[in-house]
Amino acid sequence: MQRDVTISEVGPRDGLQMVSQVMPTEVKCRWIAALHAAGLPEIEVASFVPPALVPQMADAEAVTRFAKTLPGLHVAVLVPNKRGAEAAVAAGADKITLTLSASEKHSQANLRRSRERQMEEARALAAHVMALATATRPSLEAGLSTAFGCSLQGEVPEREVVEMAVALAEAGFDSVGLSDTAGYAQPAQVRRLLRAVRAEIGERCDSLHMHDTMGLGLANVTVGVEEGIRIFDGALAGLGGCPFAPGASGNIVTEDLVFLLESLGLRTGVDLDALLAARAILAEALPREPLHGAYARAGRPTGWRAAA
Amino acid sequence: MQRDVTISEVGPRDGLQMVSQVMPTEVKCRWIAALHAAGLPEIEVASFVPPALVPQMADAEAVTRFAKTLPGLHVAVLVPNKRGAEAAVAAGADKITLTLSASEKHSQANLRRSRERQMEEARALAAHVMALATATRPSLEAGLSTAFGCSLQGEVPEREVVEMAVALAEAGFDSVGLSDTAGYAQPAQVRRLLRAVRAEIGERCDSLHMHDTMGLGLANVTVGVEEGIRIFDGALAGLGGCPFAPGASGNIVTEDLVFLLESLGLRTGVDLDALLAARAILAEALPREPLHGAYARAGRPTGWRAAA
Repeated sequence: MQRDVTISEVGPRDGLQMVSQVMPTEVKCRWIAALHAAGLPEIEVASFVPPALVPQMADAEAVTRFAKTLPGLHVAVLVPNKRGAEAAVAAGADKITLTLSASEKHSQANLRRSRERQMEEARALAAHVMALATATRPSLEAGLSTAFGCSLQGEVPEREVVEMAVALAEAGFDSVGLSDTAGYAQPAQVRRLLRAVRAEIGERCDSLHMHDTMGLGLANVTVGVEEGIRIFDGALAGLGGCPFAPGASGNIVTEDLVFLLESLGLRTGVDLDALLAARAILAEALPREPLHGAYARAGRPTGWRAAA
Repeated sequence: MQRDVTISEVGPRDGLQMVSQVMPTEVKCRWIAALHAAGLPEIEVASFVPPALVPQMADAEAVTRFAKTLPGLHVAVLVPNKRGAEAAVAAGADKITLTLSASEKHSQANLRRSRERQMEEARALAAHVMALATATRPSLEAGLSTAFGCSLQGEVPEREVVEMAVALAEAGFDSVGLSDTAGYAQPAQVRRLLRAVRAEIGERCDSLHMHDTMGLGLANVTVGVEEGIRIFDGALAGLGGCPFAPGASGNIVTEDLVFLLESLGLRTGVDLDALLAARAILAEALPREPLHGAYARAGRPTGWRAAA
């Protein structure tokens, strides 16, 4: 399978975490298998957080072990700290992501610690992972939340985002992704910030995690593509919605992301019809959850062809 | 009022034409006044078509005359032919637009005549308008429908779009707008086609009319901005929906278009809060019509400022 661009599906983690209903492990696995069957090369399947905090992720280990049985799948997980990373590595995760907030207020509200304290956690985690034997060492990503603005703080100075990205690269993170947690990013800002960060850490800044709160998610992806980004997060059907905008998608919709990238001539390796089949599993499992997406509503344009 | 970009509101024409309910003239005028009060510099207020064909536009003359009483408003109307243009000029329209389909199949299905026959109509119309006394002569626009693809025909060859744009410029049209009638456009295509058309007729190709069928409307606008386009159509609340995608917006949502452009640092002269007030009129007048838009759902981002 030739791919020009990688879509990392975050529905089973980021999406489900926002859904009050807890999806049974068996259904989760069936859904993840369907996402894999649709050609998604990477799926963020779980978060290794304490079950008391996030009951939706209580089966993180079982789900990760199942995902590892799917041929060729890059299995990504979120970890809050070194302890979570140990559990994730034991379960066989290929990639572990730690999130840090670029906004001090968001860091305090969401992680209950300062950015400085979380950066110490990041350094300890990186040292731990880098000391692992090559055979078990997952790739290590930092996700910079609220990189484009914060619902609590408003503007997040670009200089601070750049400084954190540099610190994370120096700590040993393989990659640093920029996340538009609040959905505030606009295209000119995406271009500017990507250039500023990549001027310092180059291609270690390799991915974008965009939200569609203000309807600009795919415009921002378009700019990301133009700037050379080739890894994008998406959530099937925009699962989980947006806490700031009831009825809106939070994460950009994977189906629409695939449609955009393929229309731009970039091969994703993802089959849109098969994605709709995975969506049907979701519709059945979470009947109260609104499912978003233009492609699912409008269907394939007459004469449209995927990238070849 | 300093503006860097012009938004042409097409809700009262393009939006209402897609709504089965006929809006009373009084409500239409109140709505148009609210749109004007929000700072929209141009509104397409009516279509001078036979009332038997489009009952929603039976009051075109009265609405146009009313709109002309609003200070500084550029009053745009659609006309199907020379007879419509005569009525529009008599009512005082500042701008008249004739649409032609770039897709032969769409031309036959929508206009019930070939592209060639419609081009003759366009030449006759242009000759008629150019012969008018300067004081009464409106500006004359051609709208090239299905310029980015057609739901009936699929792909529309770019060469044919360029040829039609050249013919229209030669016929004397002041401007040629490109319309993504089916909502099939993608950003790379928008850039390519704009460059191809503008290489031939320069700034006479000055506007984009984008739909959001596939969720790419604002991504396409972003590229249009980068290519130098400074006139964009939008419909308040995406009124009228999309015939190809029930539940989706057809025309891009004016509120979201304003938000994007202002975020990019381009002054629109439009006040977003006042737009929401105009939206409330619509919600009351057309209670069965779905109203779209991210800005209306999500509200203003914390710390967000309009362009200054």
